Amino acid sequence: MTVTQPVVCTTVAQLREEIAARVAAGAATVGLLPTMGALHHGHLEIARRTRAENDLAVVSVFVNPLQFGPGEDFESYPRQLAQDVAALAAEGVDLVFAPPVEEMYPGGAPVVSVTSGTAGAVLEGATRPGHFDGALTVVNKLFTIMAPGPRIPFRAYFGEKDAQQLLLMQRMVRDFDHRVEIRPVPIVRSERGLALSSRNQYLSAEQAEHALVLHRTLVALAAGELTLEQARERVAAEPEVRLDYLVTVDPQDLELVDPAPGALALVAAWVGPTRLIDNMRI
Amino acid sequence: MTVTQPVVCTTVAQLREEIAARVAAGAATVGLLPTMGALHHGHLEIARRTRAENDLAVVSVFVNPLQFGPGEDFESYPRQLAQDVAALAAEGVDLVFAPPVEEMYPGGAPVVSVTSGTAGAVLEGATRPGHFDGALTVVNKLFTIMAPGPRIPFRAYFGEKDAQQLLLMQRMVRDFDHRVEIRPVPIVRSERGLALSSRNQYLSAEQAEHALVLHRTLVALAAGELTLEQARERVAAEPEVRLDYLVTVDPQDLELVDPAPGALALVAAWVGPTRLIDNMRI
Repeated sequence: MTVTQPVVCTTVAQLREEIAARVAAGAATVGLLPTMGALHHGHLEIARRTRAENDLAVVSVFVNPLQFGPGEDFESYPRQLAQDVAALAAEGVDLVFAPPVEEMYPGGAPVVSVTSGTAGAVLEGATRPGHFDGALTVVNKLFTIMAPGPRIPFRAYFGEKDAQQLLLMQRMVRDFDHRVEIRPVPIVRSERGLALSSRNQYLSAEQAEHALVLHRTLVALAAGELTLEQARERVAAEPEVRLDYLVTVDPQDLELVDPAPGALALVAAWVGPTRLIDNMRI
Repeated sequence: MTVTQPVVCTTVAQLREEIAARVAAGAATVGLLPTMGALHHGHLEIARRTRAENDLAVVSVFVNPLQFGPGEDFESYPRQLAQDVAALAAEGVDLVFAPPVEEMYPGGAPVVSVTSGTAGAVLEGATRPGHFDGALTVVNKLFTIMAPGPRIPFRAYFGEKDAQQLLLMQRMVRDFDHRVEIRPVPIVRSERGLALSSRNQYLSAEQAEHALVLHRTLVALAAGELTLEQARERVAAEPEVRLDYLVTVDPQDLELVDPAPGALALVAAWVGPTRLIDNMRI
């Protein structure tokens, strides 16, 4: 089987030229999957969908320093562009945007940036200060850089598992009037309900069994069988599981609300030493 | 003389449709002058330039609640849309974008917004906390809403008198990769050098005389005839004048720098009860 290699763009100007040329040549829709590289099965699943749903399929590979905190692993984060490009070639992706840091942030960190205020400082943001603002800042740039013009539908793909990130991206599109349609990608689960994550590999067989309490409790909460307090107690009572939070929020602004229809239930817990997140619409 | 009335758009969708229709009909360049209305001579001068330099001339009239602080005059800020539209008609402006607050911020204040961090909190930002972030947030929206597409040059006009605002807008365009060219509009001065401002009307004849020290001192500083300290002393020594700040900054990030070529000298002072600002490139 022959695969066409994607064009790898390393500058903003080159990416814009490639997109303009392909739109001029007839591409009527553009799709973007933003990643930090080190692509795994889950990414490739979304790349396939991006490919299938758009004339022009673009994947960005950029380890964004802004979304790492001081104690975090920006330097040691895995970088394997050649492997990633090969994997994306097999999925038929057209363009890979892999800029160096200096191309995205010439002269250092941006002076003007994106902030999600308190909505990005709670829940996952509480354990990673600045993380969401960094992610929003780089995705805002990707949206503006790639904007193919008013007549060309432009879609961006984000997983539902990182619910807070997805909600903030949707909110940015609305608050900034980006002409981008966010296409959420549903959580993929094991047969027994555990949300797939690269961190699941750290779970022992026994821990993986205990971790099922997260999904089971979300289902019961969504069905109205448990109050929020009972749901928390059920998670906390599971051996080896330590609850970080279990809340229901308004997907518009991430404010805490009662577990009523339309709300989103979010859970984070340590199972042994491994931190897992999951979520479900009520 | 007959004048064509500008089309007044009150929704984002309507503005986008009008721009798309005019681009489709052959408009090859788009210009934007963002205002809060209550247009005076200075605005109309810039409107004329926007008209002359672009096929499609757009003026936004929007009193942006985000850029007013709690103690400020958002409610009482003058609103006179009919007069403004008539004045813009006389200048040949094509479109006026005058959305209600709910159109720009549906459901209330945005969750995701633009911040300039410390660069927007110093100098003028020190006396108006949040002001520049509010201005950047709304102009970012205007840029995204109006973006006419990759092939159509898009220009936005800002006065050099509000130097910090201009620098932050230029920085946002660069940091956000907006496809907008900021066209700075030079300061208009009286014959004797006083920067024109609607606040000059509050000055007595004597105060207007004392206010000339601002421009005179900037000229001497730019010519290297005074040190920064001597320049401050000269302003402070003028009767009726109370210096707020006189600094030189790097126009890239508003960091304080020595008064060397390329730096921008910024001054703010009260003359009697009236606060004036002025600036000059070294």
